[in-house]
Amino acid sequence: MDEQRFAWNEMTVGVCYYPEHWDESLWANDLDRMLANGITVIRIAEFAWSIFERTEGEFSFDLFDRFLSLCAEKGMKVIFGTPTATPPAWLTQKYPEVLNATQSGVLMRHGLRRHYNYNSPVYRQKTCVIVEELAKHYATHPSIIGWQIDNEFNCEVNDFYSQADHDAFRVFLQKRYGTLDALNAAWGTVFWSQTYTEWDQIHVPRPTPNGSINPHLHLDYIRFVSESAISFCGLQADILRKYLRPGVFITTNGMFGHLDNHRMTDEQLDVYTYDSYPNFAFLLERAGKLDQLRDRWSSKSLTEVRSICPHFGIMEQQGGPGSWYNRMETPTPRPGQLRLWAMQSVAHGADYISFFRWRTCTFGTEIYWHGLLNYDNRDNRRLREVAGFAADLKKLQPLCGAQMDAGFAIVRDYDNVWDAEIDTLHRAIHNQSENAIFEASQLYHTPCDMLYLRANTTLQDLAPYKALFMPHASILTQDRVRLLEEYVQQGGTLVVGCRTGYKDECGRCVMDPMPGLLQPLTATDVADFTFTSPAEPVPCAAWDGETFEMPVYNDVLTPLDGAKVLARFTGSYYAGEAALTEHAYGKGRVLHLGGTFTVENTRRILAHLELLEPMRTLVEAPESIELVMRKKDGRRWLFALNYNSFPVSIQLKKPLVSLLTGKESTGNFELAPYGVDVWKVE
Amino acid sequence: MDEQRFAWNEMTVGVCYYPEHWDESLWANDLDRMLANGITVIRIAEFAWSIFERTEGEFSFDLFDRFLSLCAEKGMKVIFGTPTATPPAWLTQKYPEVLNATQSGVLMRHGLRRHYNYNSPVYRQKTCVIVEELAKHYATHPSIIGWQIDNEFNCEVNDFYSQADHDAFRVFLQKRYGTLDALNAAWGTVFWSQTYTEWDQIHVPRPTPNGSINPHLHLDYIRFVSESAISFCGLQADILRKYLRPGVFITTNGMFGHLDNHRMTDEQLDVYTYDSYPNFAFLLERAGKLDQLRDRWSSKSLTEVRSICPHFGIMEQQGGPGSWYNRMETPTPRPGQLRLWAMQSVAHGADYISFFRWRTCTFGTEIYWHGLLNYDNRDNRRLREVAGFAADLKKLQPLCGAQMDAGFAIVRDYDNVWDAEIDTLHRAIHNQSENAIFEASQLYHTPCDMLYLRANTTLQDLAPYKALFMPHASILTQDRVRLLEEYVQQGGTLVVGCRTGYKDECGRCVMDPMPGLLQPLTATDVADFTFTSPAEPVPCAAWDGETFEMPVYNDVLTPLDGAKVLARFTGSYYAGEAALTEHAYGKGRVLHLGGTFTVENTRRILAHLELLEPMRTLVEAPESIELVMRKKDGRRWLFALNYNSFPVSIQLKKPLVSLLTGKESTGNFELAPYGVDVWKVE
Amino acid sequence: MDEQRFAWNEMTVGVCYYPEHWDESLWANDLDRMLANGITVIRIAEFAWSIFERTEGEFSFDLFDRFLSLCAEKGMKVIFGTPTATPPAWLTQKYPEVLNATQSGVLMRHGLRRHYNYNSPVYRQKTCVIVEELAKHYATHPSIIGWQIDNEFNCEVNDFYSQADHDAFRVFLQKRYGTLDALNAAWGTVFWSQTYTEWDQIHVPRPTPNGSINPHLHLDYIRFVSESAISFCGLQADILRKYLRPGVFITTNGMFGHLDNHRMTDEQLDVYTYDSYPNFAFLLERAGKLDQLRDRWSSKSLTEVRSICPHFGIMEQQGGPGSWYNRMETPTPRPGQLRLWAMQSVAHGADYISFFRWRTCTFGTEIYWHGLLNYDNRDNRRLREVAGFAADLKKLQPLCGAQMDAGFAIVRDYDNVWDAEIDTLHRAIHNQSENAIFEASQLYHTPCDMLYLRANTTLQDLAPYKALFMPHASILTQDRVRLLEEYVQQGGTLVVGCRTGYKDECGRCVMDPMPGLLQPLTATDVADFTFTSPAEPVPCAAWDGETFEMPVYNDVLTPLDGAKVLARFTGSYYAGEAALTEHAYGKGRVLHLGGTFTVENTRRILAHLELLEPMRTLVEAPESIELVMRKKDGRRWLFALNYNSFPVSIQLKKPLVSLLTGKESTGNFELAPYGVDVWKVE
Repeated sequence: MDEQRFAWNEMTVGVCYYPEHWDESLWANDLDRMLANGITVIRIAEFAWSIFERTEGEFSFDLFDRFLSLCAEKGMKVIFGTPTATPPAWLTQKYPEVLNATQSGVLMRHGLRRHYNYNSPVYRQKTCVIVEELAKHYATHPSIIGWQIDNEFNCEVNDFYSQADHDAFRVFLQKRYGTLDALNAAWGTVFWSQTYTEWDQIHVPRPTPNGSINPHLHLDYIRFVSESAISFCGLQADILRKYLRPGVFITTNGMFGHLDNHRMTDEQLDVYTYDSYPNFAFLLERAGKLDQLRDRWSSKSLTEVRSICPHFGIMEQQGGPGSWYNRMETPTPRPGQLRLWAMQSVAHGADYISFFRWRTCTFGTEIYWHGLLNYDNRDNRRLREVAGFAADLKKLQPLCGAQMDAGFAIVRDYDNVWDAEIDTLHRAIHNQSENAIFEASQLYHTPCDMLYLRANTTLQDLAPYKALFMPHASILTQDRVRLLEEYVQQGGTLVVGCRTGYKDECGRCVMDPMPGLLQPLTATDVADFTFTSPAEPVPCAAWDGETFEMPVYNDVLTPLDGAKVLARFTGSYYAGEAALTEHAYGKGRVLHLGGTFTVENTRRILAHLELLEPMRTLVEAPESIELVMRKKDGRRWLFALNYNSFPVSIQLKKPLVSLLTGKESTGNFELAPYGVDVWKVE
Repeated sequence: MDEQRFAWNEMTVGVCYYPEHWDESLWANDLDRMLANGITVIRIAEFAWSIFERTEGEFSFDLFDRFLSLCAEKGMKVIFGTPTATPPAWLTQKYPEVLNATQSGVLMRHGLRRHYNYNSPVYRQKTCVIVEELAKHYATHPSIIGWQIDNEFNCEVNDFYSQADHDAFRVFLQKRYGTLDALNAAWGTVFWSQTYTEWDQIHVPRPTPNGSINPHLHLDYIRFVSESAISFCGLQADILRKYLRPGVFITTNGMFGHLDNHRMTDEQLDVYTYDSYPNFAFLLERAGKLDQLRDRWSSKSLTEVRSICPHFGIMEQQGGPGSWYNRMETPTPRPGQLRLWAMQSVAHGADYISFFRWRTCTFGTEIYWHGLLNYDNRDNRRLREVAGFAADLKKLQPLCGAQMDAGFAIVRDYDNVWDAEIDTLHRAIHNQSENAIFEASQLYHTPCDMLYLRANTTLQDLAPYKALFMPHASILTQDRVRLLEEYVQQGGTLVVGCRTGYKDECGRCVMDPMPGLLQPLTATDVADFTFTSPAEPVPCAAWDGETFEMPVYNDVLTPLDGAKVLARFTGSYYAGEAALTEHAYGKGRVLHLGGTFTVENTRRILAHLELLEPMRTLVEAPESIELVMRKKDGRRWLFALNYNSFPVSIQLKKPLVSLLTGKESTGNFELAPYGVDVWKVE
Repeated sequence: MDEQRFAWNEMTVGVCYYPEHWDESLWANDLDRMLANGITVIRIAEFAWSIFERTEGEFSFDLFDRFLSLCAEKGMKVIFGTPTATPPAWLTQKYPEVLNATQSGVLMRHGLRRHYNYNSPVYRQKTCVIVEELAKHYATHPSIIGWQIDNEFNCEVNDFYSQADHDAFRVFLQKRYGTLDALNAAWGTVFWSQTYTEWDQIHVPRPTPNGSINPHLHLDYIRFVSESAISFCGLQADILRKYLRPGVFITTNGMFGHLDNHRMTDEQLDVYTYDSYPNFAFLLERAGKLDQLRDRWSSKSLTEVRSICPHFGIMEQQGGPGSWYNRMETPTPRPGQLRLWAMQSVAHGADYISFFRWRTCTFGTEIYWHGLLNYDNRDNRRLREVAGFAADLKKLQPLCGAQMDAGFAIVRDYDNVWDAEIDTLHRAIHNQSENAIFEASQLYHTPCDMLYLRANTTLQDLAPYKALFMPHASILTQDRVRLLEEYVQQGGTLVVGCRTGYKDECGRCVMDPMPGLLQPLTATDVADFTFTSPAEPVPCAAWDGETFEMPVYNDVLTPLDGAKVLARFTGSYYAGEAALTEHAYGKGRVLHLGGTFTVENTRRILAHLELLEPMRTLVEAPESIELVMRKKDGRRWLFALNYNSFPVSIQLKKPLVSLLTGKESTGNFELAPYGVDVWKVE
């Protein structure tokens, strides 16, 4: 993994602010109250294109000049956004080719955001102009400490079907495959007479009967979307770098699909920031369907963010109830929840926490996406809570730049993530297993990281983990298998599930027995396999007298030389066949589960690997409490987060001093409703 | 409220008839049988454009001339419809610009009805031609007593996206706002860089990512649709008025969304008629989901109709099972139901009841939208039932023009009705509360009216009501608040719910504490609020030891000087805070409920206001019986309607004489299944 | 019924193979292993257009020439497919007018299959060219025993909305109606001013408000789609017949909607083949919704296939788990199921069973539509099972050409099948009744046939059946009624249900009392009728003290002279009225059920007709076992099929010898899980 080029050197609190939304008479009071409440950084300008360039080619910086002067005067630091997520009306009116479209070709029009496409030559040119104008004008402003490129790449939609995308896709493919023969082979176009004989015959997905398309084209299409977004980001980064003062960082925010965020960060950004809205767990439409983890699922996203950039920021942290005027209704965060969720970000590695937004907008699509303040502009409990959080954060200063202490990692790569998105079998098992492994990790207090296998991943990146869970790498490559083999050779434990290794990088199936390239490591063979049948009960497997479910999909395992059977199926026509095997390999071992991961079988496997509950000598907590351990320079800190609306007791097994209260505690310790505490561990 | 320009002076029964659908040999027998069964008026011609103008500019009146001669001969009166709901094929083929379109621009084609748009210059011109031809030819026909313009404005679709609508929307906005600066301010276009710099950039809603748009544009768009329909109606009314004999009325039928029916009636019509199909309550798709009120919900629609036009007609009254060939399946009305539903219309103020239709059409989309007769043309139980109803109606002659006797009214205005349609928060609370208040009114026999606050509404319109329920007027204006204040000052009771007063006429949020302009009246402040959380049980409130639910949304009330707390929340983080307050103001008082209305809390409030069950000294009835009191010139009549398939007993607490049977009854009185009775009171 | 022009003279096993999908080095081994496993015929080439004509007008036969030489060498017989289901990319790119479109006009693009339309002059011309080239080149190849035209007509989509379809629809209608006046009358266009005054105004269905259209146009549109497919098939058949050797047959495969398969077979084909995938019953999306018959519903399809062509083939028989990469997930067939399902086809009349496909494709949309072999190409349990089936089939050789022994038939005609598709009332009762009758037939071991009333149907086709169930012939014609009358006259029993006879061939309602033209036969009258109400319990009927449900729809029957009431309603407002009548007519009788058929009332009626369980003197079996009797030249064979995952016992009431095992059994006989046996009777 590349080193990140910028990291905060102290824990910082920020907020998003839109000077253009408010009467100028409010500015000074707003800044004063922010500073008084511990907020020292604001993000501005990322949707203000029509302020800067009201009509084509006429630029005006007055409003933001005045505002930035005030910031300088007050001592407020600023992150400045480029406004390309929201092109002005004149632009899309005059150049409709800049718009994204539906698959059927209906243009997405002015009135929301992110209605442009990344590949339109006109849009790229207009983007260069506005970014260059802004960079030239503001690059040296002393208040500006960083720049945000665009806003939430691939949010709203992450599919692109404009004419510019059809054209750019061909260029992408020419670069990838060189010849049509190579492309035809890669996509298996001989099937159903799909062979292409001219480049112009190739398109991003278009309407077909039943909406299905060639799956290999589909996979390359997602790669293309990712490349397009990265390229568009790079276009802006290159301009900004020409003008920025040293030390001023470049970032972008959010984490959305169809985008290799790792590569974008490595290539274009100095640091990555995320937008964390755990309140989505309480969308009204989930009534009656709330699961056990609810807002703790945000910890899974934060775990993924950490894999992109270990010491990240939160550009938008939940600041109030969020919804649009016509969708995504959520309740108001309960007293304590804003602080809890901000602490969740900190526990998972955020050194910068910027709330969205200062005051709720009184017009437009997001009138219900509440900021800290309500329309009435009065101090309220949310602002008080954030002020308290800011005070807490000062006490956590030693943790700035600390690392997660995780015993195992969930392994991913973009090929499989995207294949799992388009392939219904892969999707079913991927979703089941990744969520179950993470849920087990949360409930049984066994922190994990996420690890992406990439071209620049090395044994150094893998070695720290005692075990790697790579649930369903349908697609395997020689390079990745070589790296995994080294990892196992040197003592690591690799755990894989069903449907491993039956595809190549194009998503074509290989003519080898499963698990394909991994067979030497697993010492298993798969000759029969099935979706679990809707006509049968969920199959189970038995392991040392304990029985657990094996839902969704089953590979019937045949152990080869050296493989030991740990568990056997107890149901369906393959009852008695191997369901879980273990194979000693080098100094390590490989476990092969002939199915998907569940909370129960993951817990059982973690216990078998002696990874379960690594903090149990220090603390004991119920399943509903998240425990996180952070470490830095030999020091360690324990976080306990209570996501419940009621107080919960945990057991501290040795005396620990809280960084937040300064108090030493031992034995029974009660976390308040939505409460958090952090202790120093020696 | 304006006075209506035409009212029936005797209770009349009609039917819809389509001479063009039948062999002419059937006409005379049809008319004879109608008259023999008490039907004295027919509506004709409203879908017959292609009969009158088979090809462009060639007019033929022969068929309807022959038919009208027969009517004159038989003594049948006629309401004549203009045929603009169904343009001929030649028209839409030659001028596709007259068609409505989907938001994506797909044109709605020939083959159904209402596929035209109101704003196409060509359609308006062709409409003028056909209406003028018809008016010229038929205006003086002695059988014709009234004209119906078009058919069911805004039925089928009430969204319009044709090119003509894009163009006309701009004209509408120029008139409304004058300048782009004013429009940009009104719509908050500074949000997400939506600022418009040329009028041509503005459109009726177009496709965007996720289908969301600017909510203020959305609100103005609905206003625009309403204006368009009214203008199109006016186009025809102006022509008709040039030709009509005095005493011949102009009306239109149905009541659909996106249309200010009040203004249309005041400005363009002499009287309003409604189409009442209570059988929709029994749509097959509702199997397993039938609620308590079922066909009694039609009484809510009739209550709204009465607010538009107190002495209205029913142009189409349920005459048989109704469905299209491909949707809306319903069972056949049970013996007694047609009469029950017709009496429901009468009870709520209809003086003219015209059944749809004489005989079921044997072809086309509506082969299952049964008329009184089946395809086989034999007399049947439905016709017998209608003949009986006609005989009954003669006995109710004294009630013609009588008024509903209602103790309270539900207050509406179009700004809030339309805002509730597009705003998901507003919609959720509006639907919950309006339905609950009406349901409480029905179940507890506390008749109510509906009252629209309009520019011409005066204290005289409000004063008759002891209480006004205005559940969630998110949008408040100075004018409406002034009127409400006068009403309370003079002794009225105003009851409001959560989210009152946080928006202005544009749908922008005001920077005042809720309930905004009403705060002086309510003497409350709202500093915290929330959708009720899917993670918590429904919050409750306690009032004098009684507990009731407060679902959907809660405002946490802070009573100000003079406000008395009636009820307090018992759950969530605001337990103990005020949930319902009362504030004496002038000679009246204002109640503020920090939530939505339910049947239970409405019942409790009505009891508190001493409005509950005003007829209880006269009659006692179970919840499943609707009781209505009508009054005129000091006389009063009591209706009891049994919507059940079984007989139900009510208690008459003094001797009353039935207008229908002439019998006097007292004490226990059994209403037959689907039975109705009407008694003279005093 | 016409005689079929080709029939297999021995039971044969085949497989589908795609030489173009595999490295040529695999071919010889593949063919050798097929032959070794009892597979003697392969189908090839039906998706290989781009192999034969890689660019426009340049033909290449090399690949298939080489492969066919190998077939000749190995002794493998071949069915050769024309490749018109999948036009090459160059074709649709250059001539987009050949594409099908959505109703809104969005073209269906390259990338799946069946994206062409039948009526494009260009596509018809290109089809003629490729078919003629292939016929010329391959017609005399000695390995080729038959030709398959296209692949699965009307699969994927069976609606067509391209410009060519708009144009061809008018020609179809001109031929059907001659004049616009006739068309306007037939379609009842006077309703809603739909009258057409120029042919150009007429279109295949286009978008309208609410998606509803003129139902008579809709019915003719489906007829038009069927004609288009048949015409396109005939285009190819005519070319092939010019070149084929005598004895080489022409077929096509599959059975899909909007297609008169009977007429297509009679006019264009020598024999009909079907694609049988019983595993669809276990689609994952059915989890929790599996019904009692599950994979036995395929027997209903096979019953329909038999009505088209008594001695048919299965061109694609389930060969493994089937799904696309993005939909239709199913579990792997359990051990025994492939054989069971193949035997199901044989039991119902298939003399040729060709599995789909040899080896699972490793790329493209169907990577999960498994063949016999997996990607890894190893022999496996599925191949072993098919080899066993092939060996079994040799033992069933005497059954080749045998007939089903069925006591009654379900009567259909295309007018009513298609009317039931577009008409929601007709659809509801049709689906309820046909499925219930078939389910009763299965559960109570009373085999039935399906019988289509067509122009060439004669009394000879009807006479063999003791009873005909024609549940809801809404549309009746004089010809069909005359035939049914003859059938009853000579001693047959006709059973009809509600809503019989109220429409004419155009789908217009007739002005006669129901059951219309059948009234003389039923001696009943229907004056009242209703969908069963969602507000009432399901109505029942009582027959000799036994009560059964009468769901969905009820006709209230009035018995006329000579009709005997068998059962009366016990609920709703028509309690006590006739629910089932019987009328002696000629030597036969007619039963009229005033409702829909259920498993229970069908069982009761079959018992009344003394048709229930005709094999009960020979065998007794639980409901979950399918029993089939086949007969030929005075010999009879009994099939018993166990669809369960567990063994099931049946009672053989006399000693019978199994054709499969040669063993004689009597009394208790255990069928293995998914087991099948076949015994010689007498």
